[in-house]
Amino acid sequence: MEKLTVVKIGGKVINEEASLDGFLKKFAKIEGKKILVHGGGNIASEWQRKLGIEPKMIEGRRITDQDAIDVVTMIFSGLNKKMVAKLQGLDIQALGMSGADLNLIKSHKRMNVVIDYGYVGDIEKVNDEILNSLINLNITPVVCALTHDNKGQLLNTNADTIAAALATGMSETHEVDLVYCFEQPGVLSDFESKTVIPLIVKKDYDGLKKNGTINDGMIPKIDNAFHAIDAGVGQVKICHFDAIDKVQAEDYPGTVICRK
Amino acid sequence: MEKLTVVKIGGKVINEEASLDGFLKKFAKIEGKKILVHGGGNIASEWQRKLGIEPKMIEGRRITDQDAIDVVTMIFSGLNKKMVAKLQGLDIQALGMSGADLNLIKSHKRMNVVIDYGYVGDIEKVNDEILNSLINLNITPVVCALTHDNKGQLLNTNADTIAAALATGMSETHEVDLVYCFEQPGVLSDFESKTVIPLIVKKDYDGLKKNGTINDGMIPKIDNAFHAIDAGVGQVKICHFDAIDKVQAEDYPGTVICRK
Repeated sequence: MEKLTVVKIGGKVINEEASLDGFLKKFAKIEGKKILVHGGGNIASEWQRKLGIEPKMIEGRRITDQDAIDVVTMIFSGLNKKMVAKLQGLDIQALGMSGADLNLIKSHKRMNVVIDYGYVGDIEKVNDEILNSLINLNITPVVCALTHDNKGQLLNTNADTIAAALATGMSETHEVDLVYCFEQPGVLSDFESKTVIPLIVKKDYDGLKKNGTINDGMIPKIDNAFHAIDAGVGQVKICHFDAIDKVQAEDYPGTVICRK
Repeated sequence: MEKLTVVKIGGKVINEEASLDGFLKKFAKIEGKKILVHGGGNIASEWQRKLGIEPKMIEGRRITDQDAIDVVTMIFSGLNKKMVAKLQGLDIQALGMSGADLNLIKSHKRMNVVIDYGYVGDIEKVNDEILNSLINLNITPVVCALTHDNKGQLLNTNADTIAAALATGMSETHEVDLVYCFEQPGVLSDFESKTVIPLIVKKDYDGLKKNGTINDGMIPKIDNAFHAIDAGVGQVKICHFDAIDKVQAEDYPGTVICRK
């Protein structure tokens, strides 16, 4: 099967023009078919504040009300076009998409009887056929963290989950590498010394959670990774955005997550 | 040759959710292949003001500096995704694009020795091949008023001009109708009574300008129309956005512009 690299980029790199340019240059050089998925970093909250709207949070999670989905839509889509223009400048045939474009990702508004998260989407279906057609035309889809309910509403959707869903959908027809890039060098066993855990296999994951080595924000990311692996993705890599050019190299410095 | 309808929508309809919904429902029902082109109405200036940035104008024309292109990119792209989601909800296989996506429209930064308009693009080349591939897959491209210089920079570009350029590009392979929709019922001979000029042919155009019947904002629009007609577009229609469902009907109430 042909190789496909699905890269999710998030965190500070998105806010910093020079970091983003550096990352995109390296991303452009990844050989073979590829897909880029991105969130909006903290830009959406920043812009909400600039507009005098205080972002609503409940238990550390963003509530996406009408004002918020409007701002999130603009920020994610605008960033998407900016990245597409930069990639075109690097000779990549990029196509920016939300989940609404070509009905790429259908989701439904999250149902929760306790907390109404607002316009937040849980993914139902990836349009694998369209995605396959695009990558077979050597198009590089650049997908932002918006899906739609196919009734006209855009929904804010976790970019890690989108990347995992796209990687899973493509794993029937491709040998898929899913890469999560962020501002840390990998999954850390020690935050102070930035010591990276080079390999996490499923049988060790519970232990690492129980002894507190893996905690907080990393847990949903690694859960997403194992869901993708269970559904057919070969392996998941978690690394610094600067290491994206080493993701297929022997001296890859980040974390590899695989079944065993 | 197969029929293709290129519709440009601008003005207030874009700012008003109910008007936009009504327009999109009618647009969705246009038979055959179609392309939608849109600007951002006055939303970009409004948002700039909300963000405490006063829009810069020289001789009534917007200067698109770095702050402005960032806001314009977000507004146009966000609106684009919103329209795509709504069209998907109406069973249209919409794909939102800027000129950077799939290198659809290459432009260069406007050169003017007297006034620096900033990040404003003059169109060099439409990627007709890609556009043909998309519409032949029954995809409806929804194109916002952004092009790119193919060196990584997005450029704010007049939506009327984009619509004319796309229509011209497609006229080699399609029988193209170009429709400009806005909040007036057509080109008016009398603004007070809203009397529409039903037909404008080239030989009469100069006279209508000279005697002041056609003036101000309508002149670049009609110039664009005649450029498109000279380059192969069959006819150009200018009408109210509410009349988009009558654009192919006998009781079409707007203005038709054609060679003779």
